[in-house]
Amino acid sequence: MASRVLRAGSFIARTVPPPASVASVLSRRTFSVSARMASSFYEPGWEPEAPSVKTEIPGPKAKAAIAELDQVFDTRSLNMLTDYQKSVGNYIVDADGNVLLDVYAQIASIPLGYNNPALLKAARSDEMINGIINRPALGNFPPTDWAHVLKSGILKVAPKGLNQVFTAMAGSDANETAYKAAFMYRRQRERGGHHVEFTEEELSSSMLNQAPGAPQLSILSFKSGFHGRLFGSLSTTRSKPIHKLDIPAFDWPQATFPLLQYPLADHAAANAAAEAASLAEVEHLLLNHPLPPCAVVVEPIQSEGGDNHASPAFFRGLRALTRKHGVLLIVDEVQTGVGATGRFWAHEHWDLPHPPDMVTFSKKAQTAGYYYGDPLLRPNKPYRQFNTWMGDPARAILFRAIVDEVERLGLVESTARVGGYLYGKLEGLAGRYPGQFGNLRGKGMGTFIAFDHPKRDVFLAEAKKVGINIGGSGQSAVRLRPMLIFQEKHADLLVEGLEKVAKKLA
Amino acid sequence: MASRVLRAGSFIARTVPPPASVASVLSRRTFSVSARMASSFYEPGWEPEAPSVKTEIPGPKAKAAIAELDQVFDTRSLNMLTDYQKSVGNYIVDADGNVLLDVYAQIASIPLGYNNPALLKAARSDEMINGIINRPALGNFPPTDWAHVLKSGILKVAPKGLNQVFTAMAGSDANETAYKAAFMYRRQRERGGHHVEFTEEELSSSMLNQAPGAPQLSILSFKSGFHGRLFGSLSTTRSKPIHKLDIPAFDWPQATFPLLQYPLADHAAANAAAEAASLAEVEHLLLNHPLPPCAVVVEPIQSEGGDNHASPAFFRGLRALTRKHGVLLIVDEVQTGVGATGRFWAHEHWDLPHPPDMVTFSKKAQTAGYYYGDPLLRPNKPYRQFNTWMGDPARAILFRAIVDEVERLGLVESTARVGGYLYGKLEGLAGRYPGQFGNLRGKGMGTFIAFDHPKRDVFLAEAKKVGINIGGSGQSAVRLRPMLIFQEKHADLLVEGLEKVAKKLA
Repeated sequence: MASRVLRAGSFIARTVPPPASVASVLSRRTFSVSARMASSFYEPGWEPEAPSVKTEIPGPKAKAAIAELDQVFDTRSLNMLTDYQKSVGNYIVDADGNVLLDVYAQIASIPLGYNNPALLKAARSDEMINGIINRPALGNFPPTDWAHVLKSGILKVAPKGLNQVFTAMAGSDANETAYKAAFMYRRQRERGGHHVEFTEEELSSSMLNQAPGAPQLSILSFKSGFHGRLFGSLSTTRSKPIHKLDIPAFDWPQATFPLLQYPLADHAAANAAAEAASLAEVEHLLLNHPLPPCAVVVEPIQSEGGDNHASPAFFRGLRALTRKHGVLLIVDEVQTGVGATGRFWAHEHWDLPHPPDMVTFSKKAQTAGYYYGDPLLRPNKPYRQFNTWMGDPARAILFRAIVDEVERLGLVESTARVGGYLYGKLEGLAGRYPGQFGNLRGKGMGTFIAFDHPKRDVFLAEAKKVGINIGGSGQSAVRLRPMLIFQEKHADLLVEGLEKVAKKLA
Repeated sequence: MASRVLRAGSFIARTVPPPASVASVLSRRTFSVSARMASSFYEPGWEPEAPSVKTEIPGPKAKAAIAELDQVFDTRSLNMLTDYQKSVGNYIVDADGNVLLDVYAQIASIPLGYNNPALLKAARSDEMINGIINRPALGNFPPTDWAHVLKSGILKVAPKGLNQVFTAMAGSDANETAYKAAFMYRRQRERGGHHVEFTEEELSSSMLNQAPGAPQLSILSFKSGFHGRLFGSLSTTRSKPIHKLDIPAFDWPQATFPLLQYPLADHAAANAAAEAASLAEVEHLLLNHPLPPCAVVVEPIQSEGGDNHASPAFFRGLRALTRKHGVLLIVDEVQTGVGATGRFWAHEHWDLPHPPDMVTFSKKAQTAGYYYGDPLLRPNKPYRQFNTWMGDPARAILFRAIVDEVERLGLVESTARVGGYLYGKLEGLAGRYPGQFGNLRGKGMGTFIAFDHPKRDVFLAEAKKVGINIGGSGQSAVRLRPMLIFQEKHADLLVEGLEKVAKKLA
C-alpha cells in the first residue's frame, strides 16, 4: 500500500489508504502534484484509520479559545471547537487534535466529508470566485449563466414533477418563502384567478397587517415537527419549548404525528390505527380550523423532533387528503434530502401518484430553496416573492459540484447499502444491550437511523470520549447522520464505539 | 501612463487609468504577473472611461437567455441579465456587452465594485476556500479561529458601545433574530431575571403557540419602513402593499415616520413639529398598544420606503423615549451601514448619548447579523437563539477583506467627500430642471442621496438608455446607491447622464 505524507496533525502514523470502493475512484483523480503541494489542505480522500482521543473534550487549547470566543459570541451551545483545516473525510478534528468519527456532520449538513477534493476544486474555480466577490441580487440582476447553473445543479436533481425553483439561503427562509407562495396561491384562487386585481380594501388593510390584505389563513404542521426558527417557520415548529419560548407565534393548527411503535412488524395494527387517526385529525383541521390551512408542511422523517417515521401509506394518504381539499402539500426535505435515506429525496420512498406541490431543501445541499411545478405558484405579479439576494450563486455552484460527485461515486446507492449494513449491526447491539438501543428505526432508510436511550445525553457525552461525534434529537433519541461517504469500515468503527459506551452504561 | 491589456469586452479602447487618488494606492499592489495571467478576471482597479450602450436593454442575447431562464426561475423582476465576469469597478456589463455606470449596485449591496482585486485575493485564500467547503454549524462547532475572524472583521467595525455579535445570513433573518433577542430579553425581565425558570404553563402554552409561552408582545416599526420579507420582519415592514399582500401578519403597531419637507432650511418649524408628533405617537403606542412593544426598530434613512430622512434630534429623542420606557432600540443598518452615508454606520451621525441596543447589518457587509452590548441580550439558556449555520464564515472573511480595504483606501471619508461633490452638482440640476429633482435629500450623508421625479419609472428606464443603472424607492424617489469606490469622475458621468434624461423629459 502506498504511504502518503500528510501535513501536521496527530494521526499521520495511522493513515492508511481508503476502502477499496473509494480507492478505485480516487486513483482516477487528476490533481497535479504542484496543486497538491501548494495547498494547505489534506491530501484528498485519505483519512485516519480510526478515531483518536488524547485529551478531555474540550481540552486545554479548546478551553482557552472558547473562553476568548465567549467574550464576543455565545458559546453555550458549543459542542466542539473544530479545526476544519485538519478535519478530513468522515473525521472531525478539534482544537486539541482529538480526532473523532463524525456521524453528526454539522447537524446533518456536510454531504461529502471535510476537505472533499471535488469541492476543493469547485471552490477554486473562477466561477466560484466570481460568485463570492460579485454577489448578485438574483431577482433583478441574475448572471448570464444562472439558467445553466440551475439546470446543471439544483434542477438536475429536482424531485420528479417539480421543474422550477425559488432559491433561498437556509432551511428557515426556504420554508417561509414556500409558505408565502402557498398563501398567495390560495388567495389568488379565492379571488378568482391570477388575472384578478387586488381590491382597495386588500391594498389598504395589508398595510395595517389586517385582513383581508393580511389574511386569516394558516399553515398546518405536525406535533414534534421542526421547520425552522424564524417567526413563520417557528409557528410551524413543534419540537421543544426551548425553541419556542417567549417568541410570539401565529395561532396555526397542528395535527398529531403518528408516533409508531417498534419493531414495526409487532405493532402493525396499532401503527396503522395511529396513522389513520392522524389523517382524520388533519382532515378535521383542514375543514374546521378557524384559520383555514392553505398548506400542510411535513418532514418525511421528523428529524429534530426525535426521528419519527411514518409509513409511505400515511404520506400517500396525506397527499390524497390535501388534494381532495385543495390544500398544498409542502414536503420539508431540509434534513432528509440529498441522499441520506438511500434515495436522493426521502419522499421518493413513498411512491406518490402526484408529486408534492413544493419540496424545500437546504443543509447537505449547502444552498436552499423550494422546488415547485405548478406555474400558478409563481405569484401573479413581480416583486411579490422577492428579496435582495434570493439565494447565492456561489452555494448553488457548490451544490452542483456535490451533485456531480454524488452521481459519479454512486453515493446515494452506497448510502442505501451501508445503511443496511449498519442497521443490521445495530440490531445486534440492541439484542446484546437490552434497553439501550430502544425503538431502533430507519430500516431501509439509508444511514438515517436512530434509537432511543434512557440516558441519552450521557450516552452522547460518553460517545465523544471513545471518539464518536454523534447528535441527539427529540427527548431521548440518538440520531445517526453520517455523511454520504460513510462506508462499511466506518460503520464498523461506529458500532465498536457505541458498544464501548453501551458496556459502560449497562 | 501605463497601458494595460484587458481580456475581451467592448471597452478595451476606452480604458484609462483610474483617478489619481486610487491609482496611487493601486501602484502599491503586489499581485504577481503569473497570478494575473492565470486569472480570467479583469485587471484590478481599471475601468472603462465611460458607459457604452450598444443595444436595447435587454438586447438580443439577453432576451434569448431570459426566455430560457424564465422556464425555471421567475424573471419578471429582472432588471438586467448581467455578465459579472466582464463587470468591473463601478461598471456593470450586461449579456449584450452594454456597459453601464452602476449606482444601484445590486440593491445597495456591492461595497467595493465588481471584481475588486482585494476581494479576489480574499476569495482565493485557503481560509476562504476552507469556509466554502467545510461550512460549520457555528453554534455547535465553531472553527478554532472564529474569535479571530470576528475580532479582525465584523467586530473591528462594531458600532460604539456594542461589542458582541450574533451572525446571520441576510437582512431579514438578522432583523428577526434581533427581534427574538428582544422578546426573550423582555420576558426574562418580566419574569424577574435571567435566573428565573420557565413555568409549566409557559412551557406547555409555547408548544400551542399561545400566551404566556408565546407572548402577546410586539415590535414597533414606522410607516414606510422596510425590515425584510419573512413573516416577522414583514410584519414590521410598511413599505408597499405589493410586499405584504396575502401574507398573514402579526398585529403589531406602527408609528408615523416624520416625513420632512425640503429644502430643510425652509421648513424648519414644520419639520420639527412633524418629528415631535412622531415621537409623541411612539410614546402613545409604547404605553397603550394592546400588544406591548418590547422594541422599536428603525432605519436611519428609510431606504426602500422612499429615502425618508429624519434629524439627529429625532433619533436622540427616540433613544431617550425607548430608554425611558424600558423598550429596546434596534437600528436597522442593513442598507445604510458600511460607509455609504459618509460614516461607517449611519447612526454615528446622531451623536447618541447611549448606543442603540442592537444594530443589524447585511448588504454591503456581504454577511449579516446584529451587534449588541448588554450581556442580558444573550438569552438565559443555550439553544434559545440558534439555528444550523448561524451565519457563514466564508462571508465573514469576505467582510473582513472589505473592512480592510475600506480602511486602507479611506473609503468612508472618500464617500463623504464625493457625496458632497455629487450633492452640489445635483442641486445645480435641480435648479436647471424644475420639478424633476424634487425634494433633493441626503446632504451630508455621503452618496446616500435621493430625489423625487414625477415620472420616476420612465426616468429610470431612460437613464438606462444613457448608460446609468439606477434604482427607485418608495412611490416616486430615485435613489442613488453608488459603491464606496465611486469618485468625482463617476459623479460627473452620473450627472451628465441624469441631465440627458432630464432634458428629454423636460
